[in-house]
Amino acid sequence: MTSVPFLKGHGTGNDFVLLPDHDASRFGPSLDPATVRGLCDRRRGIGADGVIRIVRAAALATSEPRPAVWFMDYRNADGSLAEMCGNGIRVLVRHLLQAGLVDPAAATVAIGTRAGTLSVAVRPDGDLSVDMGPPRPGLSGPRVEVEHPAVSGPGTAVAMPNPHAVVPVADLDAVGALLAAPQVRPSLLFQQGTNVEFVQRLSGDHLRMRVWERGVGETQSCGTGVCAAAWVAMQDDARNGMREAVGDAQVTYRVDVPGGTLHVTRDETGSLHLCGPAVIVADGTVDLDALPAM
Amino acid sequence: MTSVPFLKGHGTGNDFVLLPDHDASRFGPSLDPATVRGLCDRRRGIGADGVIRIVRAAALATSEPRPAVWFMDYRNADGSLAEMCGNGIRVLVRHLLQAGLVDPAAATVAIGTRAGTLSVAVRPDGDLSVDMGPPRPGLSGPRVEVEHPAVSGPGTAVAMPNPHAVVPVADLDAVGALLAAPQVRPSLLFQQGTNVEFVQRLSGDHLRMRVWERGVGETQSCGTGVCAAAWVAMQDDARNGMREAVGDAQVTYRVDVPGGTLHVTRDETGSLHLCGPAVIVADGTVDLDALPAM
Repeated sequence: MTSVPFLKGHGTGNDFVLLPDHDASRFGPSLDPATVRGLCDRRRGIGADGVIRIVRAAALATSEPRPAVWFMDYRNADGSLAEMCGNGIRVLVRHLLQAGLVDPAAATVAIGTRAGTLSVAVRPDGDLSVDMGPPRPGLSGPRVEVEHPAVSGPGTAVAMPNPHAVVPVADLDAVGALLAAPQVRPSLLFQQGTNVEFVQRLSGDHLRMRVWERGVGETQSCGTGVCAAAWVAMQDDARNGMREAVGDAQVTYRVDVPGGTLHVTRDETGSLHLCGPAVIVADGTVDLDALPAM
Repeated sequence: MTSVPFLKGHGTGNDFVLLPDHDASRFGPSLDPATVRGLCDRRRGIGADGVIRIVRAAALATSEPRPAVWFMDYRNADGSLAEMCGNGIRVLVRHLLQAGLVDPAAATVAIGTRAGTLSVAVRPDGDLSVDMGPPRPGLSGPRVEVEHPAVSGPGTAVAMPNPHAVVPVADLDAVGALLAAPQVRPSLLFQQGTNVEFVQRLSGDHLRMRVWERGVGETQSCGTGVCAAAWVAMQDDARNGMREAVGDAQVTYRVDVPGGTLHVTRDETGSLHLCGPAVIVADGTVDLDALPAM
């Protein structure tokens, strides 16, 4: 029996298995994709959207000039590498704070990721806010057409930097079941597929959305998708003179997802900050030999 | 923070959160349904098909004349009470054996349930076999008609004692997605709804099936459903002279479900024994205050 420590937590229903491996001695330079798939199996493993290995940056070969103390080694449930995860990094920082692995009085915690070193701020109410950076220019803003049995219509492309198509809808309750990947044109923008957000405006700065994640299906929450939806609304409102444009002042929009509520703040530089709850639910040991071979 | 110990395990993909509460001091006479729903939430809790509280029978008021040492306090994921669960009781016994809470050399372990005291046998290969009793006479055997977009046709009612409709199909791969509850007539037999098994015969004593569980949807495995499917095949074969009838000899059929393989043995008395793997995957502590309010 090979038992290793784990934690399980979530941010607005986006859930993760965390694997402490501080000196990278347990899983070596690369986490085995089959182990990730077994851990994420919701019936024969523990179950999660992804696995976060918690490792000291100094224990990994890194080209970062000034690495953070801790590195988020993130993989999707299918075992594939992902650069970053806006809900996952907040859950990781919650654990580091609870376990005393970073200064509990710290105002911000720097975390190394494959997308560079990111900063997570601890808010007075306990919520955690991660600076996701701005959408990628050029790839963000073009109009697209989305076709889906549940809802069709024009949308906006956003690169966070992963691809999104944001589609406004009048009534989210009228959007049917999302059982298949929406078709998005021009497909040139989305050669590897795309995430799609269906977004209803509840009031000026209050949105409600559902998300189709590429390769996954409909999920409870998607951090980059929430940022993409908020950014499109902020752009529209600035264009219409309803809210400040980038550079004038920071603005904050609320986004309700099926798994809870997040807030997106666009700062004066155009960077998007994703803020909300992050929870550690359980910890213990998992028997790697008992996981399904996948 | 109210942290309590838990384990997670499964039998052929039918998964459970186990809550040790040996003297019933932690959760009292009745496990709170909201706690069960929170624990079983697959994204904001731990995730499972049901919760098994592990409690000494002596710690509970029981009318059993000769109670077993251990009682399986089982609830479905929605918080409702269930009498028994054929995969759950095998996972519970796996834990009792691993934790040294019963004699590891025991050939059988008696477990108290709301369906009475049941016996679980430890097989030489480590598999666990639970004596599920015979199907209920009178309610088992009548012909029924099943209507479903995926497949329609005649079937057989079986009470294990929960209700099942077993439908033979020529090719299970041709059965489409099971997205809605099948309609079963006469509905008089199934006033509270029914489980439905679609069963393909692969060879004489080798079946393959998919199951619709009432109130849940399609699942990876269903212990009583596997017994019901095997019983119908055994009855058909005895009627056709292909296999022994009840009382002549014991017979064993193999049943493949999406989550794995189980074997059903009908003994000389007509009792059905469900045998297969049962695995403990993880253990630890769960923070009850961090669970979603449901």
